[in-house]
Amino acid sequence: MRIHIASCRTIFCHRMVVAAIIVCGVFGLLVALFFARSVRAIPLGEGAASPDEAKRIEEVTGAIAEGAMAFIAREYRTLALFMLIFGFLIWMAVDNGLYTMLSFITGAACSMLAGFIGMRIATIGNGRTAAAARVSLDRAFSIAFRSGAVMGFGLTGIAIVGLVLVYLGLDALLPNIERHLLMEILSGFALGGSSVALFGRVGGGIYTKAADVGADLVGKVEAGIPEDDPRNPAVIADNVGDNVGDIAGMGADLFGSVTESTCAALVIGASAFHMVPEHMKDGALLYPILINALGILGSFVALFFARPKSEDKIEGALKTVLIVATIVMAIVLYPVTMSLLPTTFTLEGSTRLYTNAGVYWSVFVGLVSGMLVGIVTEYYTAHRYRTVRSVAEASQTGAATNIIYGLALGYNSAVVPMLLLALTVVVGISLAGMYGIAVGALGMLSTIAVGLTIDAYGPVSDNAGGIAEMSHMGSDIRARTDALDAAGNTTAAIGKGFAIGSAALTSLALTSAFLTRAKISPETLGLTTPPVLAGLLIGAALPFAFSAMTMRAVGKAAFDMIAEVRRQFREIPGLLEGKARADYRRCVDISTQASLRQMIAPGLLVILTPLVVGYLFGVHTLAGVLIGALVCGVMMATSMANSGAAWDNAKKYIEKGNYGGKGSDAHKAAVVGDTVGDPFKDTSGPSLNILIKLMAIISLVFVPFFVKYGGVLVK
Amino acid sequence: MRIHIASCRTIFCHRMVVAAIIVCGVFGLLVALFFARSVRAIPLGEGAASPDEAKRIEEVTGAIAEGAMAFIAREYRTLALFMLIFGFLIWMAVDNGLYTMLSFITGAACSMLAGFIGMRIATIGNGRTAAAARVSLDRAFSIAFRSGAVMGFGLTGIAIVGLVLVYLGLDALLPNIERHLLMEILSGFALGGSSVALFGRVGGGIYTKAADVGADLVGKVEAGIPEDDPRNPAVIADNVGDNVGDIAGMGADLFGSVTESTCAALVIGASAFHMVPEHMKDGALLYPILINALGILGSFVALFFARPKSEDKIEGALKTVLIVATIVMAIVLYPVTMSLLPTTFTLEGSTRLYTNAGVYWSVFVGLVSGMLVGIVTEYYTAHRYRTVRSVAEASQTGAATNIIYGLALGYNSAVVPMLLLALTVVVGISLAGMYGIAVGALGMLSTIAVGLTIDAYGPVSDNAGGIAEMSHMGSDIRARTDALDAAGNTTAAIGKGFAIGSAALTSLALTSAFLTRAKISPETLGLTTPPVLAGLLIGAALPFAFSAMTMRAVGKAAFDMIAEVRRQFREIPGLLEGKARADYRRCVDISTQASLRQMIAPGLLVILTPLVVGYLFGVHTLAGVLIGALVCGVMMATSMANSGAAWDNAKKYIEKGNYGGKGSDAHKAAVVGDTVGDPFKDTSGPSLNILIKLMAIISLVFVPFFVKYGGVLVK
Repeated sequence: MRIHIASCRTIFCHRMVVAAIIVCGVFGLLVALFFARSVRAIPLGEGAASPDEAKRIEEVTGAIAEGAMAFIAREYRTLALFMLIFGFLIWMAVDNGLYTMLSFITGAACSMLAGFIGMRIATIGNGRTAAAARVSLDRAFSIAFRSGAVMGFGLTGIAIVGLVLVYLGLDALLPNIERHLLMEILSGFALGGSSVALFGRVGGGIYTKAADVGADLVGKVEAGIPEDDPRNPAVIADNVGDNVGDIAGMGADLFGSVTESTCAALVIGASAFHMVPEHMKDGALLYPILINALGILGSFVALFFARPKSEDKIEGALKTVLIVATIVMAIVLYPVTMSLLPTTFTLEGSTRLYTNAGVYWSVFVGLVSGMLVGIVTEYYTAHRYRTVRSVAEASQTGAATNIIYGLALGYNSAVVPMLLLALTVVVGISLAGMYGIAVGALGMLSTIAVGLTIDAYGPVSDNAGGIAEMSHMGSDIRARTDALDAAGNTTAAIGKGFAIGSAALTSLALTSAFLTRAKISPETLGLTTPPVLAGLLIGAALPFAFSAMTMRAVGKAAFDMIAEVRRQFREIPGLLEGKARADYRRCVDISTQASLRQMIAPGLLVILTPLVVGYLFGVHTLAGVLIGALVCGVMMATSMANSGAAWDNAKKYIEKGNYGGKGSDAHKAAVVGDTVGDPFKDTSGPSLNILIKLMAIISLVFVPFFVKYGGVLVK
Repeated sequence: MRIHIASCRTIFCHRMVVAAIIVCGVFGLLVALFFARSVRAIPLGEGAASPDEAKRIEEVTGAIAEGAMAFIAREYRTLALFMLIFGFLIWMAVDNGLYTMLSFITGAACSMLAGFIGMRIATIGNGRTAAAARVSLDRAFSIAFRSGAVMGFGLTGIAIVGLVLVYLGLDALLPNIERHLLMEILSGFALGGSSVALFGRVGGGIYTKAADVGADLVGKVEAGIPEDDPRNPAVIADNVGDNVGDIAGMGADLFGSVTESTCAALVIGASAFHMVPEHMKDGALLYPILINALGILGSFVALFFARPKSEDKIEGALKTVLIVATIVMAIVLYPVTMSLLPTTFTLEGSTRLYTNAGVYWSVFVGLVSGMLVGIVTEYYTAHRYRTVRSVAEASQTGAATNIIYGLALGYNSAVVPMLLLALTVVVGISLAGMYGIAVGALGMLSTIAVGLTIDAYGPVSDNAGGIAEMSHMGSDIRARTDALDAAGNTTAAIGKGFAIGSAALTSLALTSAFLTRAKISPETLGLTTPPVLAGLLIGAALPFAFSAMTMRAVGKAAFDMIAEVRRQFREIPGLLEGKARADYRRCVDISTQASLRQMIAPGLLVILTPLVVGYLFGVHTLAGVLIGALVCGVMMATSMANSGAAWDNAKKYIEKGNYGGKGSDAHKAAVVGDTVGDPFKDTSGPSLNILIKLMAIISLVFVPFFVKYGGVLVK
């Protein structure tokens, strides 16, 4: 019997696990390709009322696509330069620097490719969704949803296939290297992905809000023209911003999370499993990647539940998809975990025995916590509940009370997610040590393909609405795209909560891997020892400094945009009367330049802090900094994202006719909250994800350097 | 020679130290008594233009005094009930519970007495300052300043004399008890003081802003009557609020800080000095109280520098006082520390040797950091600098940009104070272990007598302005009181920064004492062990939950007030025409009731969290909670206080005629920021001090209970 069980388990040998991962990854790519083809196959004007309307749609869609590609091109050029410099630094500073640099560049390239594909399909799907809205809501939903799925499955597929190919490549190039060193080199891949996320989230976040605020302040307030009006020169930049920030930025952020938490698990696992029987070793080692890979299958199954029965069921249908994926994964992962992992194992620097069941429950808690974070986020940000309604109600006594209640709501909304995070961490560490945190993060991220799908669905619908407006398709069509968009707003908020939660777990996982590699056992990282406590205090200050930077960056970039829009209104004759065409391209250009310039300061803060702290004060202080930034950063990011979403939806609730409706004093007060919320929810809040993750992955990759040369001031 | 040095040192024997402390403490009380008599000796109407004006001043002053006393009476009744319940809990749960309970009640009584004296003199000085403003600015300044000094010196004197008498009493009652147990019992005194601070800061903070917001929203916005207009029924409550929140609340907060950090140092010292030569032991033990006692002398010397040459020099004169006190203390403490403390000593659970010079430098860094925190705070909150001016500038594009820039300013302003805190902590721990943190806090607090003086000066001037307005003294007199008040605004911001910084250090000192008593050595409090990390995450969520509660509490209490003011305008005929008198007392009553009711929820959060966490999860998790709450709490408190002050001063800057001046769109936008800032700077921000300190002192007092019965869920 014993032999039988053992042979049952040996079928999960190294090659079979690798093959399974590759098959799942390629399957993800095929799903993406299938959906991409199906969207592209639809002629752009299909459904339009007249050839004229089709032409207008084509024009607007073209301008947005062009602007988006212009931004991507510019951003990627800057990124290439950054990669060169940072790659060189890695090469010089780290043991096995050359290989780490190669991993780094491959990771960055994969993330860039994923972002590019996402943006490309979004700018293809948006116009088609708008045109299809004339045919039926169902058809429009289907196109937007399929566009989102291209992003979700494509990105996950690229991440998994990329990771495993780099792993195999390194294995071939360095056949005799120890596993944990190999995994350390592989972490460069995650660092590459995360660096792209810095540009995508922070740069993209600044872009989208600078364009939005600039377009609103001059267009709506000064010139008195409605939102998405084609006479506004910044209107294309505003629509480009949705793709840049919410598609490419969000994608890069989650690409980073997936690869980072996988690498963290791989690094810890490589130290963990060296006592495992030889025939199981490699299979167990690659278990973290397999979680992601199976997630693609689970997500695919869930896709079949995306069938909204009517207009007000869209949001429910999207939530069902997420819940189904969670349940499927919870079931599938149990036998896989139990058979692939050894019954008992130990971790480096610890004498405790952990079990494979412990690992499963760590994954499970992460998976369920992710879903619960989504549900809590919805409770605080959808105007169906009294939470958002109390903000709308407070708008009656003015903008100040609207702001106070919105801020208080945000503060409150972060408490339960933080407790869920604490629960995941405690269960993870208790049942599987540091490895438990890492697989908890992977559990939360295992439904990412479908998570990203419903997330990317939002901006596509949002853009479709803009295109409908700019192509003068009429208010009935706009109402349909608005229905799609409204659901997208809520799923976007859920997506953000999910992104923050997973970023926090990812960062903790990376910190755990960093501690493992720096050979600091958790028991000796004394909270009240001077280096750790000082690190914790400094780290806690970082999210505040960083948020102040990103908030002001939006302000500065918006001022550039405002100046340009004013110039065009002044200098282009007939523009306001609708007789001349605005110079959209120039606005796109200004947004692009301003956002890339304004992200330098916060970017440097993120990159230099771990390097400087590690070099000057050593790994203990650095660990304190990482955790200090994490605890404050998670609370701030969650509350900012939720305050922003709540202000947005409080305004929408008033616009539906409550408390005086559109144009009332309450509405004016709510608009103030909404404008404050814009940089909160789309720039500063999500950028904090990057702060906490990127600092942690840099610390992990540079750990050999810090161990050798770090702590010059405290030696 | 050796013997000679030893005998030199023996002169600082136990009795001499006790005598020195009592002499200094009584001296402080005499200074307070002297100033109180000098203010009272001035007839209330002195300086008034006519007997009629004198009568009006008398009336208004009487109403404010009556309201303030009504609040105090009600608050103290509620407090008495609370003390009874909590005292009983202490008696039952803690070893030596009876004595601890007695300490607790004495501490509370001392704090109540200090708060009562401060409010009494403030309500005596305000009217006299207003009347004296007719004579000269100099005379008015002198009265307001002397009123403040009564608070500063009286409170410090009561704290020191109270502490030392309880110490002597316990020593007499329990002659054979070990020193560290005695100090543990003595900590009940600090818990008593801190419990009063909960009511003073949180309840008082809600009171003052509910009255302010209520008075403004109905009076200024709905009825269109100016601020401080006697027709507004809430106007007396608003003025009472300044005394309740800024005098009694601030006083209780700092009474708590002084006694808490002293007790923390005493507890740690009692464990530290058991290896010290017998003849030095008791002297060394009482060193922490001596720092406070000497601070009274240093503060007294600094008083002589409070001589403003002209109207715009008031702020400078007040700052000079603080700087002089800092320098005097830095000089005085050196010989005292070196001769009173043993050359070398060790701490419990540590093998390191620390020196008396190390203790001095710990005190020194705390002292200087306190001053620097003040200077940084001024930079971020005075409209002389571009920081506040950029917020005023952003008001031009509307309320939203005003809010965004104000929030960003607050976030930024907290970074340097946090780094100073980190520096103080690192220097303290490195040079004198846990004892170093505690004496660092004492260093920062040693100038408290003079700090409170210039702090209490502010609300007295503010009230004087209100009285001048309500007594129709004319705009020239109002301009003079405004000049006094403007300086008071900046010193209030400095005072808040100082209160937060010292609260953070106090809380860390208490946590250190708690760890010492729980026998957790800092090296074993592993940051990434499940209990500690979970505690840290939960702790980080608390300041957010607490702030959300206090912000909404202000909103709810303000709504009660709004309803009452509307009722009076409706039901009292001739009120708006100035023919009938408003029912001020009813508004005072409503504010009092509402604030005490609304503080129940946040109060319970503060008190129950350490008790529940310690009981369920044990001391390690509790330590994590304390430090998690601390790191997030300090950042939030500082940024809230400074955002609030900056919004206030940005509005004042615009009112001086910049960016369109009073009544412009920029001004309207700035008013929104100012209103958001009110609960930020006067309720939620300062209340966080209480959150972090009270949780820590409760943990310290209940440590025997937790050690015996705690951690039921993790055993």
